[in-house]
Amino acid sequence: LVLGFSGGPDSLCLLDILQKCGYALVITHLDHQLRPESKQEAFAIQNMAKARNLACFIETADVNRYAKQHGFATEEASRNLRYRFLFQVARQENAQAVVVGHNADDQIETVLMHLLRGAGMSGLIGMRYRSLPNVWSDSIPLLRPLLGVWRKHILDYIEENNLKPFIDASNLDTTFYRNRIRHELIPYMESFNPRLREVIWRTAEIIGEDNAVLQVVTDEAWQNCHLETGKGFVALDVSVLVSQPTGIQRRILRHAIAHLRPSLRDIDYRKIAQTLDFLAAPTKSSQIELIAGLHLLMEGERLWLHDETAKLPQHQWPQVADSGSILDIPGELELLGGWKICATVIADTGQTRKQALENTDPYQAWLDMDILELPLAIRTRRPGDRILPLGMDGKSIKLSDLMVNVKLPQRARGSWPLVVSGAEIVWVPGIRLAHPYRVSRWTRRTMQLKLVKPNTAN
Amino acid sequence: LVLGFSGGPDSLCLLDILQKCGYALVITHLDHQLRPESKQEAFAIQNMAKARNLACFIETADVNRYAKQHGFATEEASRNLRYRFLFQVARQENAQAVVVGHNADDQIETVLMHLLRGAGMSGLIGMRYRSLPNVWSDSIPLLRPLLGVWRKHILDYIEENNLKPFIDASNLDTTFYRNRIRHELIPYMESFNPRLREVIWRTAEIIGEDNAVLQVVTDEAWQNCHLETGKGFVALDVSVLVSQPTGIQRRILRHAIAHLRPSLRDIDYRKIAQTLDFLAAPTKSSQIELIAGLHLLMEGERLWLHDETAKLPQHQWPQVADSGSILDIPGELELLGGWKICATVIADTGQTRKQALENTDPYQAWLDMDILELPLAIRTRRPGDRILPLGMDGKSIKLSDLMVNVKLPQRARGSWPLVVSGAEIVWVPGIRLAHPYRVSRWTRRTMQLKLVKPNTAN
Repeated sequence: LVLGFSGGPDSLCLLDILQKCGYALVITHLDHQLRPESKQEAFAIQNMAKARNLACFIETADVNRYAKQHGFATEEASRNLRYRFLFQVARQENAQAVVVGHNADDQIETVLMHLLRGAGMSGLIGMRYRSLPNVWSDSIPLLRPLLGVWRKHILDYIEENNLKPFIDASNLDTTFYRNRIRHELIPYMESFNPRLREVIWRTAEIIGEDNAVLQVVTDEAWQNCHLETGKGFVALDVSVLVSQPTGIQRRILRHAIAHLRPSLRDIDYRKIAQTLDFLAAPTKSSQIELIAGLHLLMEGERLWLHDETAKLPQHQWPQVADSGSILDIPGELELLGGWKICATVIADTGQTRKQALENTDPYQAWLDMDILELPLAIRTRRPGDRILPLGMDGKSIKLSDLMVNVKLPQRARGSWPLVVSGAEIVWVPGIRLAHPYRVSRWTRRTMQLKLVKPNTAN
Repeated sequence: LVLGFSGGPDSLCLLDILQKCGYALVITHLDHQLRPESKQEAFAIQNMAKARNLACFIETADVNRYAKQHGFATEEASRNLRYRFLFQVARQENAQAVVVGHNADDQIETVLMHLLRGAGMSGLIGMRYRSLPNVWSDSIPLLRPLLGVWRKHILDYIEENNLKPFIDASNLDTTFYRNRIRHELIPYMESFNPRLREVIWRTAEIIGEDNAVLQVVTDEAWQNCHLETGKGFVALDVSVLVSQPTGIQRRILRHAIAHLRPSLRDIDYRKIAQTLDFLAAPTKSSQIELIAGLHLLMEGERLWLHDETAKLPQHQWPQVADSGSILDIPGELELLGGWKICATVIADTGQTRKQALENTDPYQAWLDMDILELPLAIRTRRPGDRILPLGMDGKSIKLSDLMVNVKLPQRARGSWPLVVSGAEIVWVPGIRLAHPYRVSRWTRRTMQLKLVKPNTAN
């Protein structure tokens, strides 16, 4: 076990008990250099470890520099550096767990701090006896064996066993805020219920158990609605997401945000609420700003959470390089990202005509081969492109209007493949056939075109 | 809409808004008779309703008597009587909903009261905009349209619209405790975070959404583990129950307790925790006392939650009336609760012998008919009953020891059917065959006995 050792009563009590129980211990101490006597304390800790015959790793951190560098408050910076060091030692020593000395009073203070700050359910849980996975490791658990022991009982133990803490506990109360909660708010609240600490400790316990259930439900829902993750983005399936209960939608969004912004600690409730509203009733705009530089983009059934600068994939659509290509008949042409367009010639039969007339699959098209001017080319759109969509008798419409009408996402339009015959667009794959090229009762030879998704049997 | 109308600013504001919105309103007021001026106020409310051209139902309650009768505190008694009356009027008037005037500040106070009292997650939710089902109805929702509006904005509305509340709001603050929370605790906590009210309101909102998810998960788990419910008892499937996450086990138990004790408001955390421990590792004792006179009894795969005096069903076992009966051969005998014992004679073949020797189903037995002394009788146990169980060569054992060994619940033993031949037990149905009566290579005629569960194809 790798023990995070501050030198205060909690970690000294824990050290003494674990050693008596016969655990193999490694003492780990980070000298935060925030108080002048810290160096001397680190030295005393090293001596104590030697006296107790325990391995001891001590490191010195420049907390203030790190805090400034990352924009953290001093306490948060200390915490980050301390745990990073603890888990680094744990990995290096092949430890079974990292153990820290938080007690039941710490738990109450943490819960109340979160309540006052408004951290929702995950805040009210406070700390857990055992955290795995945790922020620092997926395989090494973080244990808090004293989480159910009140501070006064730890001090009793220290006295009875004649132990000498290296640090005055009050020195560790670096934050004015936590101090006020400990020394003012909790005693005041106890005037409303003398058993307040017990009651809050249990509330955290119950909410922790409830949260574990919700985590399982969320993980399952995440499996169902997560489409892909890449550098600076996460894509979710909108219809699966909005079919979840609000509580789960909220958690999925938080999970995605936490993935993209791991160091973000408080996720603004209002931004999540706003996002849920946006999902429930997307406005004309398909994107909103989320939080911490993250953006939200709705493209058809896809919801992107992304960095402003992230390069979002386009492989969910058929896309083609700008330079035109010839489509062999019969034959196939590879598009970008594994998409394909295939062409076959079918000896005409009544069956094919029936199939062509009844077709509702935009990924397939049957064309009257004798009307086509060959060869067929595949190219991207050009200014002035028009098409007379199948079934629309009369005037042609602008290709750009067609793309808007079928709600083709903006990003997809520029490189969308078009099948052209001479100067005419005959098929917009996945979207619409041009009316003049349709199969009719006069058709003698039929050409079938197919748009094939990546990794799909033809 | 049936409006619960106290005459205070909240319900007056709500009344005014709903009427302006064109809702058909029925005003409902319960005179609690707790203050001398209450009769006069009721009269004034009646006049106001007349002036506003609204139907108005006023009733007088003897809160103190009701409180004494049911052991409720005055506030709780008032609340029960008030809502009972509201929903009674709603049913009678075919109302779409019951509407009450709780505001955002009430929500904060409720959440903090629950937090201080330790009501766990369901307490921290506070109140909801819409409750259905609720304690009073499964079909008529309880609505709180002002739940997101702060008290000060309601008072602004009252002033701007020149409305005259009938009751000084402070008069309604009947409880010292809630008053202290409103006037002392909340302002004090605001010194830690000026946006405290907003933050707590949101916490309740988020936890409410999470709770709705858990409710769905719990309902599903309940379907899977609930076996039966009767007068004063609920039976749950132990193995399904313990396979649930702790949070869900807790909720299932609370649900069962709430079913048996609908008026119980606080379910003691420790008792639930103790029950969970009992389920996880049942001690030698198969029963513990639960809460509010409820008991917990573990019988095999069944967990009973029951009143001490409840008559628990025995139809899950084969049971027989004490007086002996003759088993016709071939033929069948009806036991209690739809169970049956069937006897058939089988012309012996090698196939039957093989089946008999390989049989592991305690609900079937094959016997050597020529060894049996006929007729066979079915009776309950008697002092001194012994049996030589199949496969145990040597001495017979006490029937009572066999019953203990196979962990037959105490309650099941007295009326368990025994198949006897002369003075000898030949089969304990569902448990064990007697060795001397087994089928062997010398068997010429075989009798097959079957124990048949209720509603099961033979």
